Amino acid sequence: MTAHSSGPQPRPSGGGDKRERILDAAERVFAEHGFYNAKVSEIARHARVADGTIYLYFKSKDDLLISLFESRMERVCADLEAAVSAVSGAQAKLQAFVRCYLEMVHRNPKVAEVLTIELRQSSKFMKEYSNPRFADLLKIVAQVVADGQKCGELVDGIPAPVAARMVFGLLDELALAWLLGRGEKFDIVRAADWVGALILRGLERRSVP
Amino acid sequence: MTAHSSGPQPRPSGGGDKRERILDAAERVFAEHGFYNAKVSEIARHARVADGTIYLYFKSKDDLLISLFESRMERVCADLEAAVSAVSGAQAKLQAFVRCYLEMVHRNPKVAEVLTIELRQSSKFMKEYSNPRFADLLKIVAQVVADGQKCGELVDGIPAPVAARMVFGLLDELALAWLLGRGEKFDIVRAADWVGALILRGLERRSVP
Repeated sequence: MTAHSSGPQPRPSGGGDKRERILDAAERVFAEHGFYNAKVSEIARHARVADGTIYLYFKSKDDLLISLFESRMERVCADLEAAVSAVSGAQAKLQAFVRCYLEMVHRNPKVAEVLTIELRQSSKFMKEYSNPRFADLLKIVAQVVADGQKCGELVDGIPAPVAARMVFGLLDELALAWLLGRGEKFDIVRAADWVGALILRGLERRSVP
Repeated sequence: MTAHSSGPQPRPSGGGDKRERILDAAERVFAEHGFYNAKVSEIARHARVADGTIYLYFKSKDDLLISLFESRMERVCADLEAAVSAVSGAQAKLQAFVRCYLEMVHRNPKVAEVLTIELRQSSKFMKEYSNPRFADLLKIVAQVVADGQKCGELVDGIPAPVAARMVFGLLDELALAWLLGRGEKFDIVRAADWVGALILRGLERRSVP
């Protein structure tokens, strides 16, 4: 995710509430119908604004999706940051990150569905958007891993940014499996222990080889 | 991925070559333009068939994508199965799986791009298709983990199907990062060692606690 974002649309003044209403409506409509089938007119109806009003705030449906992503990811990163800061030690911080992430998926499946499934349906998002918020999320994990490696709590053979990618991939796939797997539902909050077991054991430095 | 596939289209007799040509062309066109922007007429042109011929073999563009996925995943699973069978012991098998998977991504970035990025742009694929091939891939890993747990080589706290999901998620995210990350390219084949380090250490049973 390397190219440049086209930048935010200038916002009409005093329209904070309306913008939020449109984002909330988009979240519901994207989760219900999917990004490609979602109609801007239905989003407008849910937000109680005229169709044209949406284009005062967002250039296109892709831009609306990206703005929704940025708004939700800001909260997600703040929550993850808080969870990680509340404990000390790299292993405790990693476990806190994992638990916080999976609890958010469990608590807000509609948001998780947009972040995990609908976003990937936008070619623009996948291939053109630079995605600073996702970089922020990865940085939280990479920093914990780098600090843990530095102080000798974690093994240092795996580059911290790659370890962060792996941790995210693992959480993202479990979230996806849980969100889609209507038949074979497992307990996503309980899964935090399994993820924790795998990555903490995988990354901890051991005195006995 | 739980709902039913709509089933394969009956194939015109003697058209095996033509069908393969269409799949090869679709692979190129999807990877180049993305699933949503890909035009069936361009796929037809690359395959050297009339536009209408494509609909003798595939019901829709979604069906073409799903058939392409099934065809490529059949090969992918066969290669992974062979890599895993060639060695003994759960840890060696897991390492062989990881290496084989990442080498395939490196060797066939166009196929990997369709499997990792374009597929997810089809709502039909994500939400309606039962995806037996992907289940096959997960089963290869789950079986290795279950066998390793049974014989005491691997720790048994993590359910084997969940461990398989985690291993896949980790590989899929690294593949995605590598395919999209034109700026920050890392060595995807070298990454097999890092993935191996994380999951083997994470899953192995230790005599010393």
